[in-house]
Amino acid sequence: MRYRDAGVDVSKSDAIKEAIVRAVRSTWTAEVAPLAGGFAGVMRWPSPPAAASLMAASLDGVGTKLHLALACGRVADAAADVVYHGANDLLVHGARPVALLDYIAQSKLDPVVVLAVVEGLARACREVGAVLLGGETAEMPDTYLPGVVDVAGCMIGALAEGGLLDGRTVRPGDVVLGLSAAGLHTNGFSLARRVLDASGLKPGDPLPGGAGETLADALLAPHRWYGASLMPLLQQGAFSALAHVTGGGIAGNLVRVIPEGCRVRLEPNAWPRPPLMRWLMSAGNVPLDDARRALNLGLGMVAVVRSAAERELLAALSERGERVFRIGVVFAGERGVEWNDVT
Amino acid sequence: MRYRDAGVDVSKSDAIKEAIVRAVRSTWTAEVAPLAGGFAGVMRWPSPPAAASLMAASLDGVGTKLHLALACGRVADAAADVVYHGANDLLVHGARPVALLDYIAQSKLDPVVVLAVVEGLARACREVGAVLLGGETAEMPDTYLPGVVDVAGCMIGALAEGGLLDGRTVRPGDVVLGLSAAGLHTNGFSLARRVLDASGLKPGDPLPGGAGETLADALLAPHRWYGASLMPLLQQGAFSALAHVTGGGIAGNLVRVIPEGCRVRLEPNAWPRPPLMRWLMSAGNVPLDDARRALNLGLGMVAVVRSAAERELLAALSERGERVFRIGVVFAGERGVEWNDVT
Repeated sequence: MRYRDAGVDVSKSDAIKEAIVRAVRSTWTAEVAPLAGGFAGVMRWPSPPAAASLMAASLDGVGTKLHLALACGRVADAAADVVYHGANDLLVHGARPVALLDYIAQSKLDPVVVLAVVEGLARACREVGAVLLGGETAEMPDTYLPGVVDVAGCMIGALAEGGLLDGRTVRPGDVVLGLSAAGLHTNGFSLARRVLDASGLKPGDPLPGGAGETLADALLAPHRWYGASLMPLLQQGAFSALAHVTGGGIAGNLVRVIPEGCRVRLEPNAWPRPPLMRWLMSAGNVPLDDARRALNLGLGMVAVVRSAAERELLAALSERGERVFRIGVVFAGERGVEWNDVT
Repeated sequence: MRYRDAGVDVSKSDAIKEAIVRAVRSTWTAEVAPLAGGFAGVMRWPSPPAAASLMAASLDGVGTKLHLALACGRVADAAADVVYHGANDLLVHGARPVALLDYIAQSKLDPVVVLAVVEGLARACREVGAVLLGGETAEMPDTYLPGVVDVAGCMIGALAEGGLLDGRTVRPGDVVLGLSAAGLHTNGFSLARRVLDASGLKPGDPLPGGAGETLADALLAPHRWYGASLMPLLQQGAFSALAHVTGGGIAGNLVRVIPEGCRVRLEPNAWPRPPLMRWLMSAGNVPLDDARRALNLGLGMVAVVRSAAERELLAALSERGERVFRIGVVFAGERGVEWNDVT
């Protein structure tokens, strides 16, 4: 029995590894220590001068968005989403992205797919300012279904000791702002794929109720990275809290940064529900409560701000290209988030 | 269509998350910032006083060892291996483990399996001195085969700027030492599982040629963590290079830290081949070249040391409980590693 027979082709894995080096290196800065055959990636830790430094890290998977992306030949974009997702997870705590490590697994490694994934990761890393410091490709025929790929990424970030944002300064009277999402981002795809299958429509068909874009365009729109517009304001201390709208929806994520004694009332009609969300809910017959937990409903990031700063921040965010809405208020009450539904 | 129908049960995922918090928290130190609902894990970066600090990070999967471990009810041990694997990958560059983030994915999340994985990770994290800072559990029925689990971990470590070990000081005349492995560690399991299946033996059967241990005991022996014995010596500058023996075998990993102009000759009979390796090669009819690439052949870590320090280091390592062998020498030649086979 040759080792190759056992389902693991080391020489092919090596060939893939060489081919992805170029993409990986495109993200490297002078801070990276070039190790010829490194067992780990090594880079200088970005210590802020004269201040203790905190590390923030988050690991996420792309999830089942990859299935649709593979079917539509857009796997690089879907892979990039894990970078944006992780970078946003750090952003809400005040951290900036420093480095990504990735995990790419398939039943049988397809070099074309692996390269597309790495190129997507590398492009997004350059965009958010992170180094693609390392990763692992795994070929496991007895673990993965044939023809699919799983992609996860660990995003590591840095922040100064005094810059940690965790919601503890949120207080009654604060205002809640919602920032537009580009689409589903990376959540709700198990639901969306079921709805698509049941609808009889194809990814190339126009989105019902849309402006001519295809369902693929709408469903696979990249996860937005909010750092470019939020980071400068964040450093000025503009926010009481930020929440990244991922699995669990707007309320399910916002509540994570709401302290004891504070309660949020959200206005469900404070922002336009995008055509994609309207179609998913109607075509899938999705109850509102489920949609609110599974989907971002059009908002990818939520900011809690002082009422006195609201007007200025709305203007500043609009200037930076964000579509922002005042979606709720913080009041004194049992810790939680409620919807102000008309009954 | 309820969200639960689409194969993703948010409330069950939440229940799992709550249940694993205890295990995760068991690894936390005072350096971790307690975030009630953190989107990322945050902790103090261990900056060495008055020195710039480097970060090292490595992401690895447990691989198909998990299949056998699941079948034998030892999934916690196999999950722990990803911690030891990652910690060893950092160790060979002179870094000490600081934090782990994990990825646990299944077709359908089995709370018993997820808890076993997290408990194994947490136990190993405590052992190597790393915080279990975060992670992701993913339920993807269209990606994973039923009944299996995939576990990956991103290990983040720290080292002082001058402490980076990357093989550049290796020179002709250096001596190569090999440190015993506990078994296969986490490589060669696709091969080993095929051999086991083809042999007609069961995991509970005794290892042929062994001392009475079962095949399961031998095959699933935990990946060794070499930091406890190597770290003190490493800080004294004892090593020209270290190589972690993972996929690619002894030569395939050692060559990664051998600089241009240096060549290593390995003596294949310089250490006893463990019964497990002998059985795998004979029962599987595995050619020697393949075995050398797929298996560690009994050595899990290789150290390159100055010839003058050899005797002292052999004694120091033995004192720390390592079984060490002088397995080769470095000489001037084309960069590479060769076996001194009798032809």
